[in-house]
Amino acid sequence: VTLPARLSGVLCPVVTPFKTDLSPDPDRLIRQSQWLLSQGVGLAVFGTTSEGNSLSVDEKIALLDRLAEAGIDLSRMMAGTGCCALSDTVRLTRHAVEVGCAGVLMLPPFYYKAVGDDGLFDSYAGVIDRVASDRLRIYLYHIPPVAQVGLSIDLVERLVRRYPDTVVGIKDSSGDWDNTLALLRRRWDDFRVFAGSEGFLLRTLQHGGAGCISATANVNGAAIRRLFLNWRDPQAVAEQEQLDALRRLFQAYPMIPALKAVIAAHTADGEWQTVRPPLVALRTEQKRSLLASLDERAFAMPGLPGRHCINP
Amino acid sequence: VTLPARLSGVLCPVVTPFKTDLSPDPDRLIRQSQWLLSQGVGLAVFGTTSEGNSLSVDEKIALLDRLAEAGIDLSRMMAGTGCCALSDTVRLTRHAVEVGCAGVLMLPPFYYKAVGDDGLFDSYAGVIDRVASDRLRIYLYHIPPVAQVGLSIDLVERLVRRYPDTVVGIKDSSGDWDNTLALLRRRWDDFRVFAGSEGFLLRTLQHGGAGCISATANVNGAAIRRLFLNWRDPQAVAEQEQLDALRRLFQAYPMIPALKAVIAAHTADGEWQTVRPPLVALRTEQKRSLLASLDERAFAMPGLPGRHCINP
Repeated sequence: VTLPARLSGVLCPVVTPFKTDLSPDPDRLIRQSQWLLSQGVGLAVFGTTSEGNSLSVDEKIALLDRLAEAGIDLSRMMAGTGCCALSDTVRLTRHAVEVGCAGVLMLPPFYYKAVGDDGLFDSYAGVIDRVASDRLRIYLYHIPPVAQVGLSIDLVERLVRRYPDTVVGIKDSSGDWDNTLALLRRRWDDFRVFAGSEGFLLRTLQHGGAGCISATANVNGAAIRRLFLNWRDPQAVAEQEQLDALRRLFQAYPMIPALKAVIAAHTADGEWQTVRPPLVALRTEQKRSLLASLDERAFAMPGLPGRHCINP
Repeated sequence: VTLPARLSGVLCPVVTPFKTDLSPDPDRLIRQSQWLLSQGVGLAVFGTTSEGNSLSVDEKIALLDRLAEAGIDLSRMMAGTGCCALSDTVRLTRHAVEVGCAGVLMLPPFYYKAVGDDGLFDSYAGVIDRVASDRLRIYLYHIPPVAQVGLSIDLVERLVRRYPDTVVGIKDSSGDWDNTLALLRRRWDDFRVFAGSEGFLLRTLQHGGAGCISATANVNGAAIRRLFLNWRDPQAVAEQEQLDALRRLFQAYPMIPALKAVIAAHTADGEWQTVRPPLVALRTEQKRSLLASLDERAFAMPGLPGRHCINP
């Protein structure tokens, strides 16, 4: 078995489809994943945008198995595996390694707040030591606006130095460019820094970063991928501005329900709008105005049926 | 089967003992629970102080089964069952009802922040409708300093009005007396308001509250219980002051490791000090100074072996 290569490029925290009874829908997830891969986008299942923490470990394991059985290219996929309980994180991470994921995107335990770096180090070390696999590749997940528990650069450095072949990258969703820049400037050996959104993609690449993992890649992956490929070209600044404009449009709404509403419209499949509580689907008027503003920009999702009216 | 009676009095968020391999230790949990019941204290397993969110659902189900098999009086126990994932909360809540817990203490899903009351209402309603048991008694768990997702009084009112026989109380760990007072003043029919610590116990009882659920009840339950019984007596103010003084002493340290260190010393069982990451056990000098300050107050845990030296 070959060891997983480190990831780069544009990855998508794939939205998780639910049936109307709120159970996860593996068939839709497989189709959406196949479509994303066809757009040149890698997969980051069970991220924040995936409602990953609204899924049980059993549900995530079952979805991983279905993705693997469907022949999804797991060498282009990382799975979110960081839970509050060490035992959950170990179990899910072990399974992600066993099915062959290229990596895992690992939140710190996020219930207890104001914990110190020592306890967070012990958390990651506890997982790594228990999973005990030379195939484990961890991308740390720093998202203090949501998790409220962040990863200091000192802590990242301790982990990289202690586990240089395992702790191989980070997604920085702090929204703080100075923090991303500080991570990029450390230049640990082949360490992969991903911007937490495409808003920082050009700057991240200019400073030696690996790419981005972005919510809007669920609907706009090909365009983000184009900037990833063209970032040295003269038109890169204009491309970044276009990505930013589309992103701002989504940011006027709750992001996850907005993405699902747009996917529902473009796959002509209203059930895609379903979210798990505590999230709430867009109201009809929100949906109408979001879709209208996308229409104004002639927004399309290449290869999907195309924009349809969807019922609330 | 008789329906569970609503709870009142002093309840303890029982600290969860771990073996040195960090697996939960049911035998120690049973002994600690028996001791707490002998002190007149009810049980709230899997609360914040219990490192409840550092345990998987499987681990919590196994511990509930062991407590039930050991004959622990479940009519005096609530179990923390609120997880991030609806499916986890449903499964654990259903099990707590099946084994016969008098109630459950239910956090809202706490990963996504700035969610609205509608989504939180749907979360609780989703659990209640799926568990679908007339034996389910929910005590809402409002702890914004940790969960960062709180329960507005409007939301509580909506839940009580929609599910008057199921949503029967709240633990208010906001640390905000005005919020507790506002809850007490609503006087919903037989709704049980518990202070989140004994620091508000006297005031809570003076305003018609049900009692408190307090971390320090793990070591000082009998004294807290005494105030619960004597709150109309002249010495109540002095008793409250004594409880506050002991509480302040613990608050100079990380609370959960401090409680475990004291239990370790008083049961002459050093393994009690073990915490799961991200928490970190007290350092030797912290332990020494905490135990010394308790010795100065002639602190004892009635019925336990008594204060011993414990190794780091």
